[in-house]
Amino acid sequence: MTSKDKIDMRSLRIVVINTLLSPDADLDELALQQDERARALRIGLLEAGYNIVAVLPADLHLPDRVMQLQPDMIIIDAESDARDVLEHVVMATRDARRPIVLFTEDQAPSSMEAAMAAGVSAYIVAGLHAERVKPVLDVAMARFNADQKLRNELSDTKTKLAERKTIERAKGLLMSRHQISEDEAYSKLRRMAMDKNLKISELAQRLIDAADLLA
Amino acid sequence: MTSKDKIDMRSLRIVVINTLLSPDADLDELALQQDERARALRIGLLEAGYNIVAVLPADLHLPDRVMQLQPDMIIIDAESDARDVLEHVVMATRDARRPIVLFTEDQAPSSMEAAMAAGVSAYIVAGLHAERVKPVLDVAMARFNADQKLRNELSDTKTKLAERKTIERAKGLLMSRHQISEDEAYSKLRRMAMDKNLKISELAQRLIDAADLLA
Repeated sequence: MTSKDKIDMRSLRIVVINTLLSPDADLDELALQQDERARALRIGLLEAGYNIVAVLPADLHLPDRVMQLQPDMIIIDAESDARDVLEHVVMATRDARRPIVLFTEDQAPSSMEAAMAAGVSAYIVAGLHAERVKPVLDVAMARFNADQKLRNELSDTKTKLAERKTIERAKGLLMSRHQISEDEAYSKLRRMAMDKNLKISELAQRLIDAADLLA
Repeated sequence: MTSKDKIDMRSLRIVVINTLLSPDADLDELALQQDERARALRIGLLEAGYNIVAVLPADLHLPDRVMQLQPDMIIIDAESDARDVLEHVVMATRDARRPIVLFTEDQAPSSMEAAMAAGVSAYIVAGLHAERVKPVLDVAMARFNADQKLRNELSDTKTKLAERKTIERAKGLLMSRHQISEDEAYSKLRRMAMDKNLKISELAQRLIDAADLLA
């Protein structure tokens, strides 16, 4: 490990989501036990040198708080109710995805599948050992970056496919309206786009919208 | 956890790749220590009820062995030379991807990134605790399935985009050669594909190949 890696990782700004903090939680025996666990996680993070910028409950204010705090990573500490919490966190990071690390006792494969589908970067069962915190978060970060690359590639390819369909439809419109060839229609599209300072796909979409309005 | 989950997971056929088994390994102190570790991993897997169908070295025979054994999961046990081993395993699973779980002591973020890019489903540092084996493998399996879904979606979308480009080129060829409209060219393509019992994109590709040959 180079010292650059070390600095990069240690300065991570982390938000911890703790289910115990929800206002309607009963402080019964189980809750106190969970509180102990949550404390251990936070101590592990602090000892490893991470920067915990907030410890928040998973409630309706979460999206706003995440937007304000702009954390580098979100760590969910959830005994067994991970799914509900995860839903809140996914909502809160929908517009700007962030690495999500989930510490839980929930060992059900169906919960794991749901978490993967939601884009969780690490799902750690009974893995609360202070000495393991750093490698676990490092792996989560690498996972998140690899996932983002794949998701971006998918989204780019989908956009290209959609644009191509739009351009084809617009070309067809021009060809039948003006009785011109495909090449002429494409040249016309390109010229109109340049005139209006738009991407060809944007101009094509406007043409289709206009034709729909006039239909 | 349902009993179905339990049966499904426990019957997993696992191949363990062990770097110590390579014929040129010196059995020095470090190697003996690593051997101890490897033994502990195998005991953990067996105690958790998994089916270890083979323990193999990462050598040139690996692709053949993986093809013969068709394991459900590949576990790499590598002290620090994970990258070389991983390269062999990736080669061996290129045609039929399988979940790859990597137990290692290599904590370098660059090694983690390389492993993610190679499609590793779990990267576990210093995580060799028998009680953790099952949830770790469960998470790895869920991760693999989610990744496969995303990769398949990407590959489908890329195929659609490529097919669309091919069809457009072929349409253009027919339009200019026969002086026909876009719609007529498309109808012609479709008719030719039906006659030859091909997908339109396949027929389009043949037309383009033929035109290239004759050009």
